[in-house]
Amino acid sequence: MQRYFSKFRENDYLKLDSDDWHHINNVMRLNENDLIEVVYDQVCYICKIVNYDSELKVVITDIKEESRQNIPEVVLLIPLLKEAKMDLIIQKSTELGVGKIIPIKLSRSIIKLEDKKISKKIDRWNRIAKEASEQSKRLNIPVVDLPKTIDEIKNISGLKLICSTRSLDNNLHNLLQTSNTYDRIVVVIGPEGGLSNEEEDLFIKFGFKPVRLGNNIMRVETVPIFFMSIINYEYME
Amino acid sequence: MQRYFSKFRENDYLKLDSDDWHHINNVMRLNENDLIEVVYDQVCYICKIVNYDSELKVVITDIKEESRQNIPEVVLLIPLLKEAKMDLIIQKSTELGVGKIIPIKLSRSIIKLEDKKISKKIDRWNRIAKEASEQSKRLNIPVVDLPKTIDEIKNISGLKLICSTRSLDNNLHNLLQTSNTYDRIVVVIGPEGGLSNEEEDLFIKFGFKPVRLGNNIMRVETVPIFFMSIINYEYME
Repeated sequence: MQRYFSKFRENDYLKLDSDDWHHINNVMRLNENDLIEVVYDQVCYICKIVNYDSELKVVITDIKEESRQNIPEVVLLIPLLKEAKMDLIIQKSTELGVGKIIPIKLSRSIIKLEDKKISKKIDRWNRIAKEASEQSKRLNIPVVDLPKTIDEIKNISGLKLICSTRSLDNNLHNLLQTSNTYDRIVVVIGPEGGLSNEEEDLFIKFGFKPVRLGNNIMRVETVPIFFMSIINYEYME
Repeated sequence: MQRYFSKFRENDYLKLDSDDWHHINNVMRLNENDLIEVVYDQVCYICKIVNYDSELKVVITDIKEESRQNIPEVVLLIPLLKEAKMDLIIQKSTELGVGKIIPIKLSRSIIKLEDKKISKKIDRWNRIAKEASEQSKRLNIPVVDLPKTIDEIKNISGLKLICSTRSLDNNLHNLLQTSNTYDRIVVVIGPEGGLSNEEEDLFIKFGFKPVRLGNNIMRVETVPIFFMSIINYEYME
């Protein structure tokens, strides 16, 4: 059954936005009285389509109980990348339960976004996150935030990691074995060519720990998927 | 330094094929006496370009020692999928050290390949595997095999798994904790909609164990990346 997200509840009615309504109407070709899943406030309801042509409303008929993977909130700090790579990261890490994605302004990012283009990009990224949340039947939608400087994220709390290629004893496997009591894991993924030494030092100053992901040489867009897979594996029930 | 693979050695000379030569010439724009990495028989050599215009030869100048992730040989059995999804699986699982990829003929595969198109597809898939091997600096290239029936792979040996959505006690985390002494792991990834019950039963008859990957709902093409990430994590040094 197709899933949608709603932000507005009124008694037993949930409202959907016009994009969803377009999807119901023109893609799914659903009719009055057909059932859909609608998530409101992290609860999934089985809803019946009513008022098909006028206001965008569905009526709750039942609650759907679901067992979801229980992982800490993962915040991905990623460089600005080309469109196809950003899209892949957002789609796949959403499937794998990411909590939040924050693009970080880094010196070696190839992509420099002009301010006037940012809001259009943010809309696109959040739409991808919403669609992937519907497809993977999540109970919430991860937020893709505005690009930030390292300084702007210095106060974030949790287990804070930098995926680093500088030679280190500390690998992710050993680290997670000894630190799985955090509510939030924040992980920095560097651009092609890595963080500059100054940037890595700044993150370390703000409490981030460099960690090795093993000896594979991965493309940048593979790293978030790799990381999210491992977090899911560690917390698999 | 750019990496290539060679299949022919003659004393201190390695031969490259014409595609590589085109890449060296027109993409990398390298010249006589420039250095490249060339892998021959799972050893990486630093080589100097000679005879730039005539025969395709490079001369060995040094051996490059490398530490690679040491994982069991992973054989992925995947459904035939649309081009973009096949390409993504092959590229990403190559980065993550896959040993072999075998497309399996399954009843719920959307894609039915005509025999005359297979050899063109196989060429394409193996070219993607080669390029990803070069980029991720592997010492070998995984093989993408001809599509096979379930019956044709029944004699394969190793730890044999089916990613299954049928309700089960057995999850991948618990299973790998108790079975990490295999040289080869063979894993079946079903199509959208899963294996049919008959297909799953046939795999089980041939010694495959159904295993849950947790509670996330992933797209088919995400599953191999998820699986390869976990194997790397389990064997991380």
